[in-house]
Amino acid sequence: MSLVNEMRNKMVEMVHDLQDIICEAIKTIDGTMYREDVWTREEGGGGRSRVFSEGNVFEKAGVNVSVVHGTLSPEAAEKMGGGHQLEGKDLDFFATGISLVLHPINPMAPTVHANYRYFERGAGQAEGSWWFGGGADLTPSYLFEEDAIHFHRIHKEVCDRHEIADYNRFKSWCDEYFHIPHRNEGRGVGGIFFDNIHGSSKQECFEFVNDCAHRFLDAYLPILERRKDLAYTVQQKEWQQIRRGRYVEFNLVYDRGTKFGLTTNGRIESILMSLPLTARWEYCHEVPIGTEEEKLLTVLKNPMDWLGA
Amino acid sequence: MSLVNEMRNKMVEMVHDLQDIICEAIKTIDGTMYREDVWTREEGGGGRSRVFSEGNVFEKAGVNVSVVHGTLSPEAAEKMGGGHQLEGKDLDFFATGISLVLHPINPMAPTVHANYRYFERGAGQAEGSWWFGGGADLTPSYLFEEDAIHFHRIHKEVCDRHEIADYNRFKSWCDEYFHIPHRNEGRGVGGIFFDNIHGSSKQECFEFVNDCAHRFLDAYLPILERRKDLAYTVQQKEWQQIRRGRYVEFNLVYDRGTKFGLTTNGRIESILMSLPLTARWEYCHEVPIGTEEEKLLTVLKNPMDWLGA
Repeated sequence: MSLVNEMRNKMVEMVHDLQDIICEAIKTIDGTMYREDVWTREEGGGGRSRVFSEGNVFEKAGVNVSVVHGTLSPEAAEKMGGGHQLEGKDLDFFATGISLVLHPINPMAPTVHANYRYFERGAGQAEGSWWFGGGADLTPSYLFEEDAIHFHRIHKEVCDRHEIADYNRFKSWCDEYFHIPHRNEGRGVGGIFFDNIHGSSKQECFEFVNDCAHRFLDAYLPILERRKDLAYTVQQKEWQQIRRGRYVEFNLVYDRGTKFGLTTNGRIESILMSLPLTARWEYCHEVPIGTEEEKLLTVLKNPMDWLGA
Repeated sequence: MSLVNEMRNKMVEMVHDLQDIICEAIKTIDGTMYREDVWTREEGGGGRSRVFSEGNVFEKAGVNVSVVHGTLSPEAAEKMGGGHQLEGKDLDFFATGISLVLHPINPMAPTVHANYRYFERGAGQAEGSWWFGGGADLTPSYLFEEDAIHFHRIHKEVCDRHEIADYNRFKSWCDEYFHIPHRNEGRGVGGIFFDNIHGSSKQECFEFVNDCAHRFLDAYLPILERRKDLAYTVQQKEWQQIRRGRYVEFNLVYDRGTKFGLTTNGRIESILMSLPLTARWEYCHEVPIGTEEEKLLTVLKNPMDWLGA
């Protein structure tokens, strides 16, 4: 087995194992079982999607893994990024990753998204022909500063353990990526985001991504536990629905993964599992000054340094 | 006053008058009043948005007119279309139009959209430097064939009265434009769509557009009257919400007007007033064979010739 396939296999195994671990945790918390769909893609590869719907804690929670390969169209190759010049068979690609979005019912409990992925172009051996990407970010409807701090702290701890990772850089990158220009708002309170990571070795990158991905539950579950049973009003649920509308706007208008999926004949239900069960658009909705809703908006318009200067 | 400004003024007056007429009709049917926002655009021009929210018949109904001018960015100019080569001051533009989207509460009553617009590049006198666009289309959650036939018949009658218009061509154009590739579905049962219309004279085009725009109420109101008070179940309301999710997908991912607005610093609340009040995304939603829901999907996947061969 070549060195190339070693990393392919290692990453494929990792994302599948992690999907099992995370789904097991959700099952326990939610008290329901996911629906699983194993699918193949005509052009090569496939995936395993698991989605919890209308459970006790989660309105919708999807955890998807995929292993796809094939030949990119020049347009898809451009969207894919990686910053590489295309030449002949560099249009061949291999990609594997895990992607999850959890939308809790309770408006006090934040939505969370995480995604870890590995790409190769061509044989994936030459410098610049392979890279990792990923990150995790938190999207509350109501701001609990301790939640944002906890989520960021866990991710900073992981970054600090790995030479290749830079929390400050990945934190800013996250704020920039999950920005909704037409609203001048962040999608949420951030976390980390990185793309096109290719350090001194594949192994070094994998160790960081693996570490990060396996801390996801530590970053999110304590927050969920604190918020999932809090009391809330009809008005607070409605505000959550408006925030979900913004989530839809970001994912459909700006998210590169979604756009990539829509133009590469991906499995549509797996791509759009990230959308919330329900969303709301009120014309000219405004939040009164001094409310919790305004407090959230202020932070979304001015990303915070959650861990202090 | 130059000939150029004559058409600018004529069209501006027409869209404002029509906004009054249509809003008056909605007010009467809905028993509520719209919220009006008169807005200006930093780069030149502005608009008048009127939106009914959570009324007795309509969940959300927006009727917007705008008169904007300025200098296009090359990117916006490309999105704007018109099929013209850009040269220097051709980046100057003038645009006016009326745009409306009505989302009734009752799932038996279809959503409707209409838009009529006039563009100029530069001085708007040379061949190819001015054009009209527009159309109207119907988006039911439940298919009543007589509704689709009525809506198409009214539009065919208008087209048949004008040399410049071709119902068959505009009907197909509508089916092509309001198509959701990633779902392999039409957004609705169509109507007419045309863009970049510039016949022998501005006056000839205006007469068609004016006639069409003024038949909007005749095309839609009889349908609304028939459906707005029909009984419906919770399940039928949920299906409507899923169809509204598709409406959101089309508008945010494909609609050129929305994309143009988002990249030209348009008034965001006016651009997104087309989105429904609420929408729903169920993972892997399926419709049982032989149901009314399946009947609709079949037609959305295979556009019908509503007026016979």
